[in-house]
Amino acid sequence: MLPQRVKIVEVGARDGLQNETRVLPVETRVELIRLLAEAGLTAIEAGSFVSAKRIPQMAGSGDVLQAALAATADAGAACAYPVLVPNLRGLEAAMQAGATEIAVFAAASETFSRKNINCGIAESIERFAAVAERARAANLRVRGYVSCALGCPYQGEVGPGEVARVAGLLRDLGCHQISLGDTIGVGTPGQARAMVERVAERVPVEHLAAHFHDTYGQALANIHTVLPLGVSVLDSAIAGLGGCPFAAGASGNVATEDVVYMLDGMGIHSGVDMRKLLFAGDYICAKLGRPNQSRAAAALSARSR
Amino acid sequence: MLPQRVKIVEVGARDGLQNETRVLPVETRVELIRLLAEAGLTAIEAGSFVSAKRIPQMAGSGDVLQAALAATADAGAACAYPVLVPNLRGLEAAMQAGATEIAVFAAASETFSRKNINCGIAESIERFAAVAERARAANLRVRGYVSCALGCPYQGEVGPGEVARVAGLLRDLGCHQISLGDTIGVGTPGQARAMVERVAERVPVEHLAAHFHDTYGQALANIHTVLPLGVSVLDSAIAGLGGCPFAAGASGNVATEDVVYMLDGMGIHSGVDMRKLLFAGDYICAKLGRPNQSRAAAALSARSR
Repeated sequence: MLPQRVKIVEVGARDGLQNETRVLPVETRVELIRLLAEAGLTAIEAGSFVSAKRIPQMAGSGDVLQAALAATADAGAACAYPVLVPNLRGLEAAMQAGATEIAVFAAASETFSRKNINCGIAESIERFAAVAERARAANLRVRGYVSCALGCPYQGEVGPGEVARVAGLLRDLGCHQISLGDTIGVGTPGQARAMVERVAERVPVEHLAAHFHDTYGQALANIHTVLPLGVSVLDSAIAGLGGCPFAAGASGNVATEDVVYMLDGMGIHSGVDMRKLLFAGDYICAKLGRPNQSRAAAALSARSR
Repeated sequence: MLPQRVKIVEVGARDGLQNETRVLPVETRVELIRLLAEAGLTAIEAGSFVSAKRIPQMAGSGDVLQAALAATADAGAACAYPVLVPNLRGLEAAMQAGATEIAVFAAASETFSRKNINCGIAESIERFAAVAERARAANLRVRGYVSCALGCPYQGEVGPGEVARVAGLLRDLGCHQISLGDTIGVGTPGQARAMVERVAERVPVEHLAAHFHDTYGQALANIHTVLPLGVSVLDSAIAGLGGCPFAAGASGNVATEDVVYMLDGMGIHSGVDMRKLLFAGDYICAKLGRPNQSRAAAALSARSR
């Protein structure tokens, strides 16, 4: 029933850092990514090619990506560094920096889509179609996000049928993987299961990833409920980076340390070395000046003291 | 597969507070229990009849219990207030205070038993046999705890067979319910499932309760995995009180708010009112001078601001 292996897509250096108050320089982000790769992660979101005025945390993402790619080439390692791309201009910049994988970002909530990217779902898919076409012509892999997959900060409930519809549209654009994001962390296991089951009718489960936030503490329970459905790609962020822009003081992405602790305990291979992961978490938390949000990291660090 | 109803045994005023650094006076603990009962909880651990020198946090437990019982009688409500009792002397004190339910505390780890209560498992069961006999003769209900159910801070691994053996012995003493405690929070879902399945071969599952700590962030995932096995009684602590005496800075009991949030989302009835629960959490966190450890509480409070 359970997958023997799970691939973790580490989103701390992008989804995490872009929601942190403190803006970190390029060197720090490059070093974080280097430490994450050293811990055994093989897919690390490296940045976002959006307006630096709108999201200053992601300024210099081209430099971050170039440095990460160079370091990986030196090490002879195989690590993917997807970067978020909102439009054709972002794609061009990403390609200039050497991107081999991009991610596009749609929502399952019409209201959220309009507030977040200033256009409705249909228009966003049209925009991404052009981006995806150009990217694939250049042999880039394209990852798709569906945000608000278990709820929307504005309109509340989001039906699983709508998530399946948007995921299907992204798949039709040629996305090799669709990450289903409970970006506000409100979902519980019953909803998570129903949503993934519904989406899997439209997009084969081997093309799906689960992206949970731990805002309400539900992330591991939600992950635990979707693993037996065949989901074997999980998004998570080192140290639970990210907070939640819609709930001050609330926690953000599920912490990679908590996910790896659970997978290790369940005998599911992730290839990630916990000790090195803790080192990466310590590094970035010191730079951000805030505690590690991972409970496993806090407990393991306390134990080793 | 899932239970339609779950009974929560609120352990914050005992298992929680006894592991908090700040010692709270009787009035504060009585008010906490009153607020918890008002939130709809129908089983609230009220105290521990142990040496006040050894555990000053539980001094005056007789007064706390009397006040709680009086308040419930006034309100005409049906709430149970189990109290921890280590020996016959503790039982006498509990009965003088009007206890109608006691709890005894065994371990599935020989080393932990010796370090925690200064005697091995076999001797502790003998001691509890006398306590249970006397209690049942006086028509008191007896609840049994098995600690270290998924691991021991001293000896590490604990086999599910040993947990089943100790749970069976407690059941043989007449315990109406056996609470299986991962008291250091190290377990993950696969282990939790295997342990409960093994115990259920020895003690019918309707007599079992699950008691998880969130030290490594695994509690809700573990709860989620044991619910389909028929476990319908869950221990939890308001605001995640308790910390972990073996891992400084680490979190303690799973927070009642996180459990209720999950159960509500899954459509499982607990009878607990989240709004009133948040009020109780705010109250006790202010008294303890520390943040609420519940992620659901933090997010809901942030949202309502």
